[in-house]
Amino acid sequence: MTVVIGIPASGEHETRSPINGDVVKKLAALGVRVLIQRGATDASFATPESLGDVDWAETSTEVIARADIVWSIGNLSAADQAALRPGQLLMGLLTPYASAEHVTALAATGVTAFAMELLPRISRAQSMDILSSQGAASGYECVLIAASRTPKFFPMLTYAAGTIRPARVLVIGAGVAGLQAIATAKRLGSVVHGYDVRPETREQVESLGAKFVNTGVSAAGSGGYARELTTEEKEQQAQALAKAVAESDVLITTAAVPGKKAPVIVTRAMVEAMRPGSVVVDMAAEGGGNVEGTVAGKEMLVGGARVIGPVNLPARMPVHTSEMFAKNLLNFTSPMIADGVLSIDWSDDVIVGTALTHGGALVHAGVAKVLGVP
Amino acid sequence: MTVVIGIPASGEHETRSPINGDVVKKLAALGVRVLIQRGATDASFATPESLGDVDWAETSTEVIARADIVWSIGNLSAADQAALRPGQLLMGLLTPYASAEHVTALAATGVTAFAMELLPRISRAQSMDILSSQGAASGYECVLIAASRTPKFFPMLTYAAGTIRPARVLVIGAGVAGLQAIATAKRLGSVVHGYDVRPETREQVESLGAKFVNTGVSAAGSGGYARELTTEEKEQQAQALAKAVAESDVLITTAAVPGKKAPVIVTRAMVEAMRPGSVVVDMAAEGGGNVEGTVAGKEMLVGGARVIGPVNLPARMPVHTSEMFAKNLLNFTSPMIADGVLSIDWSDDVIVGTALTHGGALVHAGVAKVLGVP
Repeated sequence: MTVVIGIPASGEHETRSPINGDVVKKLAALGVRVLIQRGATDASFATPESLGDVDWAETSTEVIARADIVWSIGNLSAADQAALRPGQLLMGLLTPYASAEHVTALAATGVTAFAMELLPRISRAQSMDILSSQGAASGYECVLIAASRTPKFFPMLTYAAGTIRPARVLVIGAGVAGLQAIATAKRLGSVVHGYDVRPETREQVESLGAKFVNTGVSAAGSGGYARELTTEEKEQQAQALAKAVAESDVLITTAAVPGKKAPVIVTRAMVEAMRPGSVVVDMAAEGGGNVEGTVAGKEMLVGGARVIGPVNLPARMPVHTSEMFAKNLLNFTSPMIADGVLSIDWSDDVIVGTALTHGGALVHAGVAKVLGVP
Repeated sequence: MTVVIGIPASGEHETRSPINGDVVKKLAALGVRVLIQRGATDASFATPESLGDVDWAETSTEVIARADIVWSIGNLSAADQAALRPGQLLMGLLTPYASAEHVTALAATGVTAFAMELLPRISRAQSMDILSSQGAASGYECVLIAASRTPKFFPMLTYAAGTIRPARVLVIGAGVAGLQAIATAKRLGSVVHGYDVRPETREQVESLGAKFVNTGVSAAGSGGYARELTTEEKEQQAQALAKAVAESDVLITTAAVPGKKAPVIVTRAMVEAMRPGSVVVDMAAEGGGNVEGTVAGKEMLVGGARVIGPVNLPARMPVHTSEMFAKNLLNFTSPMIADGVLSIDWSDDVIVGTALTHGGALVHAGVAKVLGVP
């Protein structure tokens, strides 16, 4: 018996593909053949030679038809999604909270869909955590964007006529992305401050050599995410942050709450108080932004500051983000396969917590509640 | 008595201005008033408040008319240049080797022009060395461009599902810019190799934590610059470099010879042997490029590699490059001024070596020879 994992081409603005040669070899050892739509890996620079012993299909239709499991970076095209069938598995970032229509249409195909955004954030599942691996890339890229756009050096520089003082960087949100941003900004030699509403992140921020901004507000929540703050707490937080923002050359915000609009943490007035030439990179731009005035995909001038709302940051480094994505999916999939036979353990919390649709229905209680689907 | 230093607005693609608040204060102590064309410092983010006690003029014509000394980033507009007068001083990057017409026109005004590119590279003049200070910024920016365009992480990254190997960066040319590129690429965590035709640079490259590529060719020249290689030496160098280039994810070239076309060090075939997705940043693009296929101001695809030819890199970080530029000019100018009186010591090697035109004539023997001006 052989299980076939099919990989259709990603959407037109996506450079990543969820496969590389290393993962192909590991899948082969599990009795899995990989079927790839021709051209699907061009933008992630995985050449046919580097992929090794895989099968190729000319169209996504053929991939979907022949695959037992479909691996995808994001949602499939409407036509490909409609071609999914009962008993087939789909895994990827499937934007489970996007809309009731989207999830209902997916469920109607009968496919068993795993939305990797829903993966329980427990230790055992860390090696499968796509949001984390891609978040690290996003945090890193935010710093590169900021360093490229700031009119200053990040590091201290001693030259023959004097010394340039290092740039001051503030990172708000100390999840995986924020911590990677802090680490990267430190690497580049800037003076870094970090902040997160969850006070337990202080130690992590400080362990990277950054200073923690103390606002006196705590929003420790469940599942590793922050809870929403009250209006009063937001006001107190804002006052303390305003000072830290005004003193910074670069502000990077990374605060996202899954399934909800990103919280507005930095107001227009706070940005306007920054020095001319300051740079703001709002990693939450696609979810509405942590900064007032952010526009996804654009650079806006707010006061004298450049406010940048980058989109799909992991697509900026597709060799490594594809590698991480593929390994995360491999780790999620491999417990389901033994000797070339596919079998899902529905008593496994990780499987159940990640399943979005199964047997023609939306099966994730949390998503159903948020979307108001009965 | 008061000496007036005038600063007209820079050209339209230039963000730098050769002044900041700190230098204004130091000039005041020498009895110098600074006269700035309104708006000239907007793009370098030096606000009127930060500049302090200066005078403002509405037009560049007024600046030129009232100034004893004109400080400029680059060449003046044709009209402003024509308005220069005998006894007046002009200092800046004046592209002395550009053309005989350019230098002859400048000389005809009678102005005493100091082309800072000509500054003797001796210890005493280091604090006045604009090519060095701006070169450091260029080397830094090259790495930011490369890191932004490569599809890989620069640093090693350990995540829950594995380890990402660091990118491999090769920097060719170990002058100020190349050394800064090496230092920055190391900061970002990549594995760095460095190369220069001058074997005495090996120690500097290695002191930054990079490995030196051994080609067995030496081109130690005079004045801190490399001499041109013979055809045979070029061949030997090319073979050794080809291997190092093919193994790299990122190639940064910084080899320039003042007054000459940049040497082509990396051929098209060498670039085509790089892995798909590799990135080449050719800092010498404006001088013709060190890499075959470079186009100044563009990103070209050569084989599977992205070959980037950035222009005016120091303009990407005008706060700090303006600060350095201003301090370099301050250090060059201050020995000429005592108690508000201007007096040039024509027995000073630094002054003589930097002077391009004086008393209506081209006075720099080296430039005269290259341009074929009698």
